Parts: sequence; structure tokens; C-alpha cells
Amino acid sequence: MKAVFIGSGSVATHLALALQEKGVTISQIYSRTSINAQILAERLGTTFTSDISDIYPDADIYIYAIKDSFLMRLLSEMDIPDALHVHTAGSVSMMAFERYTSKYGVFYPLQTFSKKKPVDFSQIPICIEGSSTEVQQKLLDLAHLITTKTYVVDSDQRKKLHLAAVFACNFTNYMYDIASQLVANSGIGFEILQPLILETADKIKTLSPYDAQTGPAVRFDEITIKKHLKLLKKEKEFRGIYKDLSKSIYKRHKKKNL
Amino acid sequence: MKAVFIGSGSVATHLALALQEKGVTISQIYSRTSINAQILAERLGTTFTSDISDIYPDADIYIYAIKDSFLMRLLSEMDIPDALHVHTAGSVSMMAFERYTSKYGVFYPLQTFSKKKPVDFSQIPICIEGSSTEVQQKLLDLAHLITTKTYVVDSDQRKKLHLAAVFACNFTNYMYDIASQLVANSGIGFEILQPLILETADKIKTLSPYDAQTGPAVRFDEITIKKHLKLLKKEKEFRGIYKDLSKSIYKRHKKKNL
Repeated sequence: MKAVFIGSGSVATHLALALQEKGVTISQIYSRTSINAQILAERLGTTFTSDISDIYPDADIYIYAIKDSFLMRLLSEMDIPDALHVHTAGSVSMMAFERYTSKYGVFYPLQTFSKKKPVDFSQIPICIEGSSTEVQQKLLDLAHLITTKTYVVDSDQRKKLHLAAVFACNFTNYMYDIASQLVANSGIGFEILQPLILETADKIKTLSPYDAQTGPAVRFDEITIKKHLKLLKKEKEFRGIYKDLSKSIYKRHKKKNL
Repeated sequence: MKAVFIGSGSVATHLALALQEKGVTISQIYSRTSINAQILAERLGTTFTSDISDIYPDADIYIYAIKDSFLMRLLSEMDIPDALHVHTAGSVSMMAFERYTSKYGVFYPLQTFSKKKPVDFSQIPICIEGSSTEVQQKLLDLAHLITTKTYVVDSDQRKKLHLAAVFACNFTNYMYDIASQLVANSGIGFEILQPLILETADKIKTLSPYDAQTGPAVRFDEITIKKHLKLLKKEKEFRGIYKDLSKSIYKRHKKKNL
């Protein structure tokens, strides 16, 4: 199978490397930014371009791992209607492709990627959607090359999943970031929080997040909450976040507390 | 060494089990609620009481793992001034003991505990504070029985750590809980998010949370943010949280985006 990657960011990088390792030929990298295309192409030992009209027309599959806003613009300039086109985005409908090609789908890896950190694809859920059962099967086969966890998910479900992932990953990481800022000025390194962070994530393998909830808000410990709000009197923004989340946790668990 | 535990909740349970395993004699469990004291005492093969006046006066150390609000009330009724008294609380000053005893300190394990889930104490940071260098050393020795990670931390630092832990653990878990509610109605199980959650936690071993941040807010992807807010139109509370956290993430990273 011959693939062209449209994009050279974190998702494109990790996905292209994983697929190549399993025997997929990555014949070209396209990126608006020539230098980024070149860097990824060099890692893969393949060619690159930053000119849409130079994209090879003979690949079996075109994998778009680019910003949502750029995808629509790019599609209107692509003219390879007979190949299979898929995007990797959480919040873009599969129907984005409808006007440009007859075979299309979605290949959405539900994971957070940073260029600097290697990932083990075998544990990453890949959410598949295809314009036909044939396309769907093709994409499932492709996904099975790199992971054991595949899911057939329609566009509406995928959008909800992506939204849930923002909470489970992006906002979670921001909680870590706030915590790191709070310890930074107290002369203690952030690493003291790492075992706690890992255990918090590990817990939800065996307990539901609802059952795993601990802390002052869930036990309605007003004294501690007041102490914390006082400590945050200069960090107004964090204070607001602390208040709102505590209130929301309490509301969710109040039946248990009564 | 002979220890009496005041409390029978998650912290008391895990700490007593870990210390007993390393040879510390847990001679008694006190709890206001007799049945809870009994359950823990049975797990340890020791005695229990729910009557303050029956607390054994001959232990070397009294370890208070109880609600902050109950600690002060209990201390005023305790009359064992010559022993060492320590609490395990994040947000209570060591000076809480000052009026009742001359040897006191803090033994604060920075971890989240749920009774149902076993924990590996060897990776848990224990924060120590002592009323004298002698007490401090005694508590460090005790902590070293069960963990390699000990920190000498004063009351002000510990309060900030505890506050940071609320973000890193309690609020993080709440993000998982919101995510689980969001996927619940879409016909997909929560387990699809587990690899993402684990990777998000794992990332901060090698990247700072600041560098690890991903998602629509950090790349100022307004189209996706708007889609997500639309999806949340019925979940007003989550919508507010989504908006505030996205705004805060954007503010934190905006220099990078310009």
C-alpha cells in the first residue's frame, strides 16, 4: 500500500512512522511549510513537497493530518478523485470529502501526540469511519497493522469523543500545569507530584472516575476549601477555576453527602 | 515501635497496613465509628476502640488520619502529652499540636487513597515536619521504612503542595468524570479514553506540563472550540468549565501563538 501524508505535525509524524514500520510505503509528505515537510520526509527517507500541484497522484491513500481550518481549503484544490482520502481529525465530519472524491473516510487516533515523545501505537484506539463498507474494511485493516484497538465510530460519536478527550487530556494536562505553577514558588520541584498524577490516572483502570473522586470538595470540607481560596488570593484566575470545579464536584456528589 | 492510629479511613488503612508490613506494631485503632475501627483492626489483627478515654497511653507514636475539622476537637480531649503525635493532613499546621504535647510533627503522604485500591507505598512521597530535629529524624526513619521518597517540608510549603495536589489529582479526576459522562450517552464505553488518560499522565515524566499542552485552546482553534461549545449547549455547567479553561490555556500560551 502506498500512502501520501498531507501534514507534517505531531499526528502525521507519529502515524507515518508507525505505518512505515509495518510495511506501508509513505511515498510523499506534503506540508505548506517546506522545512517541516522536509524534516519528516528525511525521518522517513521519502520525498516531500510544499506545492499542492506536485502531490503524487498515484498513491492508494491520502492521509490528511492538518489543521481543521486548512483541510477544507486544501480539499478544494486537490484533484485526485479516484484515490481513497481520509482525515485524522476528531471534530470534522467525514462528509467534508463528499464533493471531492467518492472513496473517503476517517482514521482518528484517540491519543495526544507531541513530536518530542515517542508513542506505542499498539495501545492507541483508532476510530474508523468509511464512505462504504469496503472503505471501512480497508481502513480497519490498515489500523490493525499498528494497533489492536479499533472502533467503528460515526461522525457524531467521534465529535463527542473528541470533546470528551479535551476534558480527559487537554484540560487534565492544564490541571498539571496549574499545579506545577503553584509548587514552583514554594521551593519544591514538580516531580514531587508525579507519583500522585500517575496514581490518579491508574485508578480509573479499576474504579470509575465517580468512585475514584477524592479531595475537599467531594467530602464537602469547607475549612480546607476556604484555606485554599485564601492561598489563591493573588492568583485570581486559578481561584475562579478552583471555586467552579469544587462547586461542580460537590453538586455531582451531594446526594452521597446528605 | 508501637503506634496507635486515630482514624480508619483510606489514609489510615493504607498507612497502617504499610507500616505493619515493615515491622511497626499497630497496637490500636481508634475511630468515632466503631464498625470502621473494627474493620481496620481486623485487617491488622489488632484491637480497636471508639472511646477516647480507652486509647492506649503507652504507644510511641499517635498517628492522626482524620478529618481536619475533627482533629482539633479530638486533640482537646487527648491526654497523652509525653508521646509523639503526628497528623497526616495536607492543610493543617503542625502547630495544631502545640498546646497538647511537646513532641509533634507531620507525616503527610502525597497520594490519593481509595480503600478499594491497593497502593505501592515505595513510590509515594512522604512530607515530614518535626517539632525538633530529633522528632524530624524519627519521622524520616519511620517514612524510610515504607518509601524511598521523603521530603522535609514546612507547614506553609505543605499547604501549597496540598493545594497543588487538589489540581493535579482531584480536579484531574473530575475532568475524567466529565469525560466519562460525555461519552456515556454516545454508546461508547469509557475504556476508549483510558490509553489517552494514561499517556497524558505519562507525558509529564519527560515534558513539562507547559510543553505537553495540546488541544484546540493552545492552538487557538476557534472553529473546534465553537463546535464543542455547541455540543455542550445542554450541559451548561460543563460548557462554562470548557469556556473558562480554554480561555485560561489560551492566555497562558498566547505569546507562543503570536
